[in-house]
Amino acid sequence: METLSSNRAHGGVQGVYRHASAVTGTPMTFSVFVPNHRLGTKLPVVWFLSGLTCTHANVTEKGEFRAACARQGLIFVAPDTSPRGEGVPDDPDGAYDFGLGAGFYVDATEAPYAANYKMWSYITEELPALMAAEFPVDVTRQSIMGHSMGGHGALTIGLRFPERYRAISAFAPIVAPSQVPWGERALEGYLGADRAKWRAHDAVALIEDGARAQALLVDQGESDQFLEKQLRPELLEAACATAGVPLTLRRQRGYDHSYYFVSSFMADHLDWHAERIKAAP
Amino acid sequence: METLSSNRAHGGVQGVYRHASAVTGTPMTFSVFVPNHRLGTKLPVVWFLSGLTCTHANVTEKGEFRAACARQGLIFVAPDTSPRGEGVPDDPDGAYDFGLGAGFYVDATEAPYAANYKMWSYITEELPALMAAEFPVDVTRQSIMGHSMGGHGALTIGLRFPERYRAISAFAPIVAPSQVPWGERALEGYLGADRAKWRAHDAVALIEDGARAQALLVDQGESDQFLEKQLRPELLEAACATAGVPLTLRRQRGYDHSYYFVSSFMADHLDWHAERIKAAP
Repeated sequence: METLSSNRAHGGVQGVYRHASAVTGTPMTFSVFVPNHRLGTKLPVVWFLSGLTCTHANVTEKGEFRAACARQGLIFVAPDTSPRGEGVPDDPDGAYDFGLGAGFYVDATEAPYAANYKMWSYITEELPALMAAEFPVDVTRQSIMGHSMGGHGALTIGLRFPERYRAISAFAPIVAPSQVPWGERALEGYLGADRAKWRAHDAVALIEDGARAQALLVDQGESDQFLEKQLRPELLEAACATAGVPLTLRRQRGYDHSYYFVSSFMADHLDWHAERIKAAP
Repeated sequence: METLSSNRAHGGVQGVYRHASAVTGTPMTFSVFVPNHRLGTKLPVVWFLSGLTCTHANVTEKGEFRAACARQGLIFVAPDTSPRGEGVPDDPDGAYDFGLGAGFYVDATEAPYAANYKMWSYITEELPALMAAEFPVDVTRQSIMGHSMGGHGALTIGLRFPERYRAISAFAPIVAPSQVPWGERALEGYLGADRAKWRAHDAVALIEDGARAQALLVDQGESDQFLEKQLRPELLEAACATAGVPLTLRRQRGYDHSYYFVSSFMADHLDWHAERIKAAP
C-alpha cells in the first residue's frame, strides 16, 4: 500500500492510498480519515460508497464528514467507484453511467467487464482485509453508507451482511436498480440479461426475498433531478412496510442530488451510525 | 447580476453569481451562502478572501463553513482572487503567484495591470455595494477573514477599515508581503518599485504605521511548506506586541497549508467572528 497524500485535518489524519488489487487486477485508490485516538485502541469504521462519476475524492473534499468523525471517534473510508487504468474496458460510447466510475458494486460476469469489474468482492472482502491490516479498525464495529449509486451499494451490501454492518444509511440512493434506467443498463451490462440474477443486487428485491436490517436511514432531496426516474424511494418505502423493516425516509425540501445535499446531512448520519455502532452488541 | 448556480445546503442557499464589474472591467464571479432566516431580517456578513490560484470555488466546496454559518446566522461571501477573461494580462511566464488568481487585493498602478487589477476597490467598494443591494446584509455587522494571500487581504483591509469589520482573522496569512518573495514580486509588479507605496498593503507595516485592530485571530500550521519563507507569522507577532494589538496566534502542530487545515479551524473562526459581530456596538 502506497500513501499518495496525508494531511492533518480536524485533529486526525486524512490520507489517500493506492494498492494493487488482486480482485480487480488494477491499482485501486481510496481515502481514509483516522481521527485522533489513544495509541493502541481500535476504532469503529464507517464505509462510504460514492455515486456515478465519482472517485474517493468527491466525498473526501466535499463531504464534511471529518468534524463529526473526529467528535465520534469514527474511521471513515471512501473507496473508488470502479476499476481504472489502461486496459480496463469502459462503456463503448463513454457513457457516464456505465464502465469507468460506474461499477455499481457488483462482480461482473459478462465480457469484457468480468475481468476487472469486481467491486462487490473488492468492497466486501479485499478492502476490508486491507483496512484491518493497515489501520486501527475494530472489525466488530462497522457500518456503511453511500450516495446515489453508492447508496445502492450501501443498501445491498448492508442487507446481505447484516451481522457485519451495524448501521446502514443512504443519501438519494438507487433503491431498485432493476426497475430504473441506470440500474437496468448496469445490471444487464455487468450481470447479463437474466433478471433473476439481478435480485441479489437490488435493495427492494433483496427485502422482498427476505433480507432484513435492524434499521435503515435514507435522506432524499425533493428537488433531486433524478428522483422520479432513477431513485424512486417510494419503492423502498413500500418494500420495507410490507416486510416490517424499520425505515426512516426523510424527504428534504429543496435539496438536490449534489454534495451540498450530502454534506448538509452527513453529520446527522454519522451521529445515527455512531449510536448504533457503539451500542453493546 | 446573474445566478450561475443555487443549491440548498445546511438549511440555507449556497449560490454562485456573476456580474459585470465596473472597477475591473471584467465579469466577476463570487459565491454567497445565505442561511435560513426570517424573511425581512438582515444578517451579519463574513467576507472570506482566498489565496493564490484559488477562485470562489475552493472555499465554497472545501471550506466547511456552512454548518457554522447556519448555526450562527451568518452570510458568507467568497469573491474571486483576480480579474479574469480575455484581454486581462497575466504574468508573462504564467507564474501562479502573479497575475491571474493572484490579485493580492491591491489596486494596480503599473502597466499593463492597472486597467483590470483593482481588487482593493472591488473588495472594499464595489462588491459590498452589490452585496447590500442584492442580499439581506446588515452592513453594520461585517467581519473579514482569509487564507494565505487572502489572509493578507483580510488583515490589510480589516486594519484599514476598523469601523467596518468587527472581527479580523486569517489562516496562514502572508503577514508582511514587503519582506517575502511572493509579496515582493506582487507589490512591485502591481504598485511599482517605490516600497513606500507598499506599506498600505502590508499588515505588519500598517501596524508599525499606526493601524490598530481590537483583536486579531491567526491560525498557522506548523507543517506549512510556506511557513518560513513566505508567511513568517513571527513578524506579525512582534509588530502586534510592540503596538499593543491583541493577537491570538495559534501554531497548529502537524497542519499544512491546504484546505484540510482551513476547514479544521473554520468553525472556530466563525464562532469567534459571531461573538464579535453580534456584540452590542
